[in-house]
Amino acid sequence: MEKISDNLAFGGRQQQWRHQSAALGCAMRFGVYLPPAAAQHKLPWLLWLSGLTCSDENFSHKAGAQRVAAELGIALVMPDTSPRGEEAADDPAYDLGQGAGFYLNATQAPWSRHYRMYDYVTQELPALLRGQFPLNGRVAVAGHSMGGHGALVCALKRPQDYVSVSAFSPICHPVKAPWGRKAFAAYLGDDETRWREWDASLLLAERGSPLPIRVDIGLADPFLAEQLQPDALQKAARESDSRLELHRHAGYDHSYYFVASFIEAQLRFHARHLLA
Amino acid sequence: MEKISDNLAFGGRQQQWRHQSAALGCAMRFGVYLPPAAAQHKLPWLLWLSGLTCSDENFSHKAGAQRVAAELGIALVMPDTSPRGEEAADDPAYDLGQGAGFYLNATQAPWSRHYRMYDYVTQELPALLRGQFPLNGRVAVAGHSMGGHGALVCALKRPQDYVSVSAFSPICHPVKAPWGRKAFAAYLGDDETRWREWDASLLLAERGSPLPIRVDIGLADPFLAEQLQPDALQKAARESDSRLELHRHAGYDHSYYFVASFIEAQLRFHARHLLA
Repeated sequence: MEKISDNLAFGGRQQQWRHQSAALGCAMRFGVYLPPAAAQHKLPWLLWLSGLTCSDENFSHKAGAQRVAAELGIALVMPDTSPRGEEAADDPAYDLGQGAGFYLNATQAPWSRHYRMYDYVTQELPALLRGQFPLNGRVAVAGHSMGGHGALVCALKRPQDYVSVSAFSPICHPVKAPWGRKAFAAYLGDDETRWREWDASLLLAERGSPLPIRVDIGLADPFLAEQLQPDALQKAARESDSRLELHRHAGYDHSYYFVASFIEAQLRFHARHLLA
Repeated sequence: MEKISDNLAFGGRQQQWRHQSAALGCAMRFGVYLPPAAAQHKLPWLLWLSGLTCSDENFSHKAGAQRVAAELGIALVMPDTSPRGEEAADDPAYDLGQGAGFYLNATQAPWSRHYRMYDYVTQELPALLRGQFPLNGRVAVAGHSMGGHGALVCALKRPQDYVSVSAFSPICHPVKAPWGRKAFAAYLGDDETRWREWDASLLLAERGSPLPIRVDIGLADPFLAEQLQPDALQKAARESDSRLELHRHAGYDHSYYFVASFIEAQLRFHARHLLA
């Protein structure tokens, strides 16, 4: 592992690392924020999954999360959004290929060789982090847009690994949304029954969630009705008697200005579970 | 004037505008943040001047200032760092030409035609803003690096226009610093006596400052000794009996992580004067 950068921020360390990922078969970058308390003891941490076109940097630059993480004593881990480099397949569209990994394990060529972001963020990266940073076993997962979909799917498929899950503007029901249908057809193939295990609303309706879920969504989000479909997630939560706090915010859109405005509320939600 | 974007952030509006600048002879973009209180009455405001390579967007994306501005009821105005476009001269180096206007009025060809950032940020832009936004006459000025130099110079040359001034990691003594010497030679010519009126340390020593000044500087800033030279500013403040709070922060560098870590402190410093 190679450290790329290291900046003091709110008394803690904001670092960027590069490593060779076995799951993805390429070099990957990730960010980590270690609050001041990391100098004293192992900390609970939040895995943040970013959205389409993002890298490991958007959240660390734009969300303002370090301030609250420093206060609460929660570390932040920020992986990239797909495999990278010439060896990994790509597509010129912003919503497929590099920058658009969708946090799943692809089964179709040419994607199946490198696009295993689910294995990467749920297994390889946490194991790597445990050996390298002062992190304990209490983990929350959150994300934005495509990363909100990823956070919900990770938490619903592996509830034993997390204490809580949240999302900003998540793609709640990708099997019915254009972004999801395009990506799932490419990564998983035409048999739509294979898509079900990567759809948060279908997973929640089927399995329920033992974890508390918080979702923040902006009512001026241009993607709300067609791509995000929070009503489907809410319906699934009701049907499965799961704990979903769905906060609808008048006037807010899909941007990081929305994330920045409510990241403190999401981090305090996770802190109740991470620090319990 | 054309509105480019408008995002709700912390209950206020983060907007990006484009207009034709008479002072600069080109189209310019700027950002403005209007806190929730702007719906009720005219607000005091902070003029933020960004550093080398920056645009009107760096501060609005990365500093996290909107949260504090919303709470305090202070508007933020974020101009670009130079004239732009094909009509304005440029240079391939990052520290000259577009993105590197140094907030002065150039006297040398080819720069003198468009590079009048001092007139733009002290006169044209404020006049434009007063007609367009709910801003009152109480103004503070702040900036980062080259923009810290700009903020100090604007406040020292036009103290009647501002109530307070602050800077992160400013170029304090550009006539003795490589960035400053290169830019001043190009924009102002070889006669170094013409440079003196654009050097914060020389201006402060000569004129003193009726305004309170706050400077935050990181002791791990790689540019500290050669480019920034805060000791020169401190010496000038002592000699002129001016009010300079110089905060030196162990471990912090030149990045926006440093700005984000202490922007709340700078905004609260300005609030004591803006809201008095």
